[in-house]
Amino acid sequence: MAKFPHPIQKFIMQLRKLPGVGAKTAERYAFEMLSWEPEAVQLFSQALQSLQVEIQTCSHCCCLKGETECDYCNPTKRDSSLLCIVSSAKDIYPIEETRIFRGMYHVLGAVLSPLHGYNTEQIDIKKIKLRIQSQGVTDVILALDSTIEGDATSLFLKEELQTFPINISRLAFGIPLGSSLDYVDSGTLTRAFLGRHRF
Amino acid sequence: MAKFPHPIQKFIMQLRKLPGVGAKTAERYAFEMLSWEPEAVQLFSQALQSLQVEIQTCSHCCCLKGETECDYCNPTKRDSSLLCIVSSAKDIYPIEETRIFRGMYHVLGAVLSPLHGYNTEQIDIKKIKLRIQSQGVTDVILALDSTIEGDATSLFLKEELQTFPINISRLAFGIPLGSSLDYVDSGTLTRAFLGRHRF
Repeated sequence: MAKFPHPIQKFIMQLRKLPGVGAKTAERYAFEMLSWEPEAVQLFSQALQSLQVEIQTCSHCCCLKGETECDYCNPTKRDSSLLCIVSSAKDIYPIEETRIFRGMYHVLGAVLSPLHGYNTEQIDIKKIKLRIQSQGVTDVILALDSTIEGDATSLFLKEELQTFPINISRLAFGIPLGSSLDYVDSGTLTRAFLGRHRF
Repeated sequence: MAKFPHPIQKFIMQLRKLPGVGAKTAERYAFEMLSWEPEAVQLFSQALQSLQVEIQTCSHCCCLKGETECDYCNPTKRDSSLLCIVSSAKDIYPIEETRIFRGMYHVLGAVLSPLHGYNTEQIDIKKIKLRIQSQGVTDVILALDSTIEGDATSLFLKEELQTFPINISRLAFGIPLGSSLDYVDSGTLTRAFLGRHRF
């Protein structure tokens, strides 16, 4: 396909690697960026380069961090007795936005998904057990997706951690805020019924 | 807003400059690219850089071209008696795809739009007149958008060029192929009625 000049075509191929970007969207992006001033392209490139250079993974909790110490592992700022387990580093940001949780995080990096080759060996359960002991964790909160993979991983973690004298909880399932019953799927409604509370 | 680490936030701001990219989409792109291998990021950056370096504008017709001669200005490959006027360089690609037109192009670079500060002075009408004379153009085809700006520009060009012994035509307006009358807006339907042909 030699529809566009080669350098445009080449960049379109790169853009199409982005999630949800098809041919038409990639073309729009490419022609937009082609019309940018060289300084603007430079700014974009620099921001992309520094993204990979400056963002590191905390060796302790696996959260993303800048070149400074990890904010989420600081015991003076965060309650070390609460440990929230998430599957991916980006999951912590929506949780942080709620301001309801001030404990520490643990990023699994993967959920159990045999189809994608992730099984229990990929989950470093020893590291979690070590953190529970060394930090004096009293509460583990499983904040995993409400998918089959999230369910399986939660179950696995519960079984592995039940020998510890700690509370293990999982995020509640139910009707999302502001939604009408008409538009809630039956799976969600079933979970909402099972999880109903005294009012 | 310090929701994400600074380098991620900075890159999200850059991504949001792309057309139709809001906060959520930019976040998705940024985290996706954060997970890329350094080589993949390098490829992306290089493609972006070479986009601006290698793509040039033909000084004659204002089409985009690589570092070689402009394909669309080559009189051995294209019919120089046909001149198709488009508003932007990217408009020629969908026309090329139809394979119906084998003449030459002229990119205006702008359409008349007083609100955006584009008036008749921004259109280099002298250059078009010169091309018509020097190339021996017999047919000018106005392939401009079916918007108020496209209408105004077409009218302006028609008036400016009517002293030449040439045919001036504009793309037909009507019902798009494969569409049902139910879904065609009344403006389009009116144009389709006015432009109806003997069947």
